[in-house]
Amino acid sequence: MSDLKQRFLAMVKGDLEDIERELHDNLNPNLDLVADVAGHLLFSGGKRLRPLLMVLAARLCGYQGNYDKTFSAAFEYLHAATLLHDDLVDGASLRRGRPVAHSLWGAETAVLVGDFLLARSLSLGARTGRLKVIEVISAITENMSQGEIHQLMRKGNLALTEDEYMEVIRRKTAVLIQGACQVGAIIADAPETRETALSDYGLNLGLAFQMADDLLDYTADTDELGKAVGADLREGKLTLPVIRALSEADSADRSAMEEIIRNEEFSPEDFGVLVELLKKYGGIDYTRRQADHHIRLAKAALEEFDSSETRDILLYVADYALARRA
Amino acid sequence: MSDLKQRFLAMVKGDLEDIERELHDNLNPNLDLVADVAGHLLFSGGKRLRPLLMVLAARLCGYQGNYDKTFSAAFEYLHAATLLHDDLVDGASLRRGRPVAHSLWGAETAVLVGDFLLARSLSLGARTGRLKVIEVISAITENMSQGEIHQLMRKGNLALTEDEYMEVIRRKTAVLIQGACQVGAIIADAPETRETALSDYGLNLGLAFQMADDLLDYTADTDELGKAVGADLREGKLTLPVIRALSEADSADRSAMEEIIRNEEFSPEDFGVLVELLKKYGGIDYTRRQADHHIRLAKAALEEFDSSETRDILLYVADYALARRA
Repeated sequence: MSDLKQRFLAMVKGDLEDIERELHDNLNPNLDLVADVAGHLLFSGGKRLRPLLMVLAARLCGYQGNYDKTFSAAFEYLHAATLLHDDLVDGASLRRGRPVAHSLWGAETAVLVGDFLLARSLSLGARTGRLKVIEVISAITENMSQGEIHQLMRKGNLALTEDEYMEVIRRKTAVLIQGACQVGAIIADAPETRETALSDYGLNLGLAFQMADDLLDYTADTDELGKAVGADLREGKLTLPVIRALSEADSADRSAMEEIIRNEEFSPEDFGVLVELLKKYGGIDYTRRQADHHIRLAKAALEEFDSSETRDILLYVADYALARRA
Repeated sequence: MSDLKQRFLAMVKGDLEDIERELHDNLNPNLDLVADVAGHLLFSGGKRLRPLLMVLAARLCGYQGNYDKTFSAAFEYLHAATLLHDDLVDGASLRRGRPVAHSLWGAETAVLVGDFLLARSLSLGARTGRLKVIEVISAITENMSQGEIHQLMRKGNLALTEDEYMEVIRRKTAVLIQGACQVGAIIADAPETRETALSDYGLNLGLAFQMADDLLDYTADTDELGKAVGADLREGKLTLPVIRALSEADSADRSAMEEIIRNEEFSPEDFGVLVELLKKYGGIDYTRRQADHHIRLAKAALEEFDSSETRDILLYVADYALARRA
């Protein structure tokens, strides 16, 4: 672990412990099964990025209350709800190196516990006493479901454009991170310029975060990833490294790539060939550059704020989004 | 159609037309597929009971604004969201005589469009400008998901008690109808006694409504029902007619009933034998009496209000819940 990462983790250690406690205390299930299923996903080593961002955004805007950690649980519950539904939609088998909930408890339970977590998220949102928070949370949910549906509609479609890809990742990933940052500003009664700045930070961080995640599918191994390498491709999900390489390749290489992508049973050797072609046509580098561009936008948005330890942490989070391996 | 029903329908015709328009106008999907899937269920002849109850409750409390019909769409969207998820959970094949959404578009799409509808419901809730409305909607969603999970956990369990059955139908059906009535009072700024009265009306109406629905599975034929007769039993759902009859039967008849219930491939003849045993041990009559009891409680709750056309309609709805065939 780098010195920088250690220093960063020390700075947020207390926050993360508080968030963890709130995640336990606010779940309130009536049934043991709900606690088991929700807990399986919620307490499996998630990084708590979304609640942490909400707490940091509120602090950056001078929040004076005592409920930031409580409210922040809403964003982890919302995240967990969408993971439960998305793993089902994607037919995923592993998440963070563990079997997904629907493979252990069945699709029915995964759907319903996801609904329960979504409702818990809203209940906490209502406890902020601000309708704008509810508007943000419902807009996030609308966007995420439509982003996932869009992705599903284009499954295996080799004609997916970079613009469509950007729209899908904005909806399915970035709006949640954006919303967490924005809600931090809202509960702190921040002026609109600061709310917008934090919203921009979150949006660009979220876009970069998803691009970095999509890169990992072509650059990491299974141990690092906690799920099978090449899973995106096997699920028919075209991401930016592939979209870019397809658009740059000569017709022979393009055909070779298309053949591998269309073959759901591609071998590790096929996958190796594809990764080499992604590199040859700059798909990996281009995606990294685009992610880097959004990280720069995210950091620039924070220029609205004076220098502080909290701002330093948010700047570090942005850099870390790109540096992370899994 | 009875004279009374015709008179009632004439009284709510304008309201139902307005509600129908609002259901169309507030869906706001970005994707055609979402409009298709949500529309398949939303515009398939639902009775709009929940939005109508919200509108009538608001009117009974003297609501003066122009947005009751708009807000009321929230309760039909929420209802449709849970139907999409529940049909999937139940493995149902028909709903209102048409193939269920998940059989036409796949489970993935049904899950995600359900999430979208839930989010639309919240967005409309937030537009009321009252946090209490959001609290009601999120409590409904928590209750419904946990009610469905409870039902799922007890699937095929012959030891299900009447108390458990009541708890399940309260959560999965009654809280939504209760919430619609309560929100009508809230948007009209009604005093607490009136909000409680309408909440009690909705709760008891909802309980009776589900009992009547559960009766239909043993008393209607497939054409009336719009789905296969005996579907509850085939799904392993024990409802009050069966629970009551099992508790009253002598040991030989109880064994005969249990054998039929445990056999997922029961024949129409087996089903006929079971229905006769339900009658013999008063399962049908008892359920009808219990439903009638809750209808009386629902109507008594309305004594909080002076006589009016709106109150008459609500009283009629209560009677109709028992009289309806499907």
